[in-house]
Amino acid sequence: MSDLPSSVSIHEEGPREGFQIEPGPISTEDKVKLIDALSDTGLKHIQACSFVNPRLVPGWADAEAVVEGFTAREGVHYSGLYFNGNGLDRARAFDGKLTLSGSISLTASEGFTKKNLNRTHAENLAAMKRQAEKHLEAGIKVNRIGVMAAFGCNYQGDIAPETVVRTLEDGMRVAEETGAEITLFSLADTMGWAAPHRIEQVIGTVRERWPEMTISLHLHDTRGLAVANAHAGLKMGVSQFDSTVGGLGGCPFAGQPKAAGNIATEELVLLCQEMGIDTGVDLDNLIEVGRMAEEIVGHQLPSELLHAGSLDAFRRGVSH
Amino acid sequence: MSDLPSSVSIHEEGPREGFQIEPGPISTEDKVKLIDALSDTGLKHIQACSFVNPRLVPGWADAEAVVEGFTAREGVHYSGLYFNGNGLDRARAFDGKLTLSGSISLTASEGFTKKNLNRTHAENLAAMKRQAEKHLEAGIKVNRIGVMAAFGCNYQGDIAPETVVRTLEDGMRVAEETGAEITLFSLADTMGWAAPHRIEQVIGTVRERWPEMTISLHLHDTRGLAVANAHAGLKMGVSQFDSTVGGLGGCPFAGQPKAAGNIATEELVLLCQEMGIDTGVDLDNLIEVGRMAEEIVGHQLPSELLHAGSLDAFRRGVSH
Repeated sequence: MSDLPSSVSIHEEGPREGFQIEPGPISTEDKVKLIDALSDTGLKHIQACSFVNPRLVPGWADAEAVVEGFTAREGVHYSGLYFNGNGLDRARAFDGKLTLSGSISLTASEGFTKKNLNRTHAENLAAMKRQAEKHLEAGIKVNRIGVMAAFGCNYQGDIAPETVVRTLEDGMRVAEETGAEITLFSLADTMGWAAPHRIEQVIGTVRERWPEMTISLHLHDTRGLAVANAHAGLKMGVSQFDSTVGGLGGCPFAGQPKAAGNIATEELVLLCQEMGIDTGVDLDNLIEVGRMAEEIVGHQLPSELLHAGSLDAFRRGVSH
Repeated sequence: MSDLPSSVSIHEEGPREGFQIEPGPISTEDKVKLIDALSDTGLKHIQACSFVNPRLVPGWADAEAVVEGFTAREGVHYSGLYFNGNGLDRARAFDGKLTLSGSISLTASEGFTKKNLNRTHAENLAAMKRQAEKHLEAGIKVNRIGVMAAFGCNYQGDIAPETVVRTLEDGMRVAEETGAEITLFSLADTMGWAAPHRIEQVIGTVRERWPEMTISLHLHDTRGLAVANAHAGLKMGVSQFDSTVGGLGGCPFAGQPKAAGNIATEELVLLCQEMGIDTGVDLDNLIEVGRMAEEIVGHQLPSELLHAGSLDAFRRGVSH
């Protein structure tokens, strides 16, 4: 009983996630090189930078220079991450080159909200309402609700699917109050708690409440289950995923410096390709970019496929 | 539509696979230490060594010393790998401490048989017949047919499910001719070609032909899909798996020294545990043994879970 999508939309977050957490320093030139290389793989969505406070994330002090530096490829949407009005203003300076859109970003775990944002859930809702208003006043759509720790949390343990629904309801209330039109729920396994059956439960419960909403999965491979979780999502018809080339990213929350990062884009592409699902991505090209990312960060990345090569490369070799 | 088993039997091959491929040298003492530690995790099947030609696999020149050295724990079955009569004789010297049983070991890819064994499939069948006879004459049961490269091959490309069935039929003919009673088919993704739908196709096709046969999966994580493939197997009711602690093993066939090894035992245990499937294994204990394995080999192993810790460890922390 599966409901496979015929194609999936992959949102590449390697530059933003990776360069935020790598001990670096990584040169602006290398960041631009990676973004330009990713633009040539067939990926249509690339999160290029983070407009966060440079004192908090020194790795992104050069966000402006990076956005100025890369060459926007037609048909590819580039975005920047930000958390407040100041970040939004910095992003707006690149309106056009960057695709701007707002998100109501919540967390299913109150414990994590406090730890990560030093806010209660209620305070975060109020902040998100102000943030949504700011976007809408500037003529920028707010079409997405994001829920972090949607599958479990290091600080709070398991998260019930009903808690995810309640968190989304809170977000929908903010949307209603501000006039935002939500078209996407992004569910994030921020700390690597998901397992396939949990993906099924959470998506099933959310779908019951909002049958028509597009759901996107943001998966981390913290405990090695990310590809299995993506597969469970695909079987439930999920057609949008965040991922990072090479599995760039690490896990800043587990206190484990060697912990893996996001699901690797190339492994997600391989999974889709082998299942006959279109991603638009040239896998061999992407693997080359992953190897470039390893050179840039100066160490081996967690993606296994990166080190073995695609199956199609072997298939071509055999058919000669 | 799933057919989850209530429990699975995990066959730990870390010592054999790992110490065969690690550049080493790894001391006999360390090998014994790892086997003894694995014996305390709840694992019931441990492949402790390889009785292969020390000129071909120098890492296992001390097979006898290792078997003499470890402490057999009651209820745990230890085995040794071998490929010929000489290896069988070496293993028989430890009958009782080692559980002896024979296997008809075939490959679904003629290309790989030639490359790996320097034999045609027909020559291999003849050799396996002699090997089975030798076991049965010695009063050792031959109850297993193994099929390598059952999901694809670097030298031959994709392998059709029908080819796997034909290979098994050849093995069943050898069993019939020798009087071996086969109770298990072991399907190996030797070079990491499987994807979940391929697992479903191959197992489905084999099951149509032999509905009652127990099927075991031997998965490699060469391209990051091993856990997703295990999940597909579990959903088809597969209740026996080979794996290696930490993902020890590497892939000697891809010519990629950094390629990942077998599916990591601890990630398989986590997957089962989260799905409510009993493995009998203490996951936190096993993760400690995986960290011991990293110390022994002197480098990071591919398992992600090893570096993040179990979910139960966090759950316990939260409940305090």
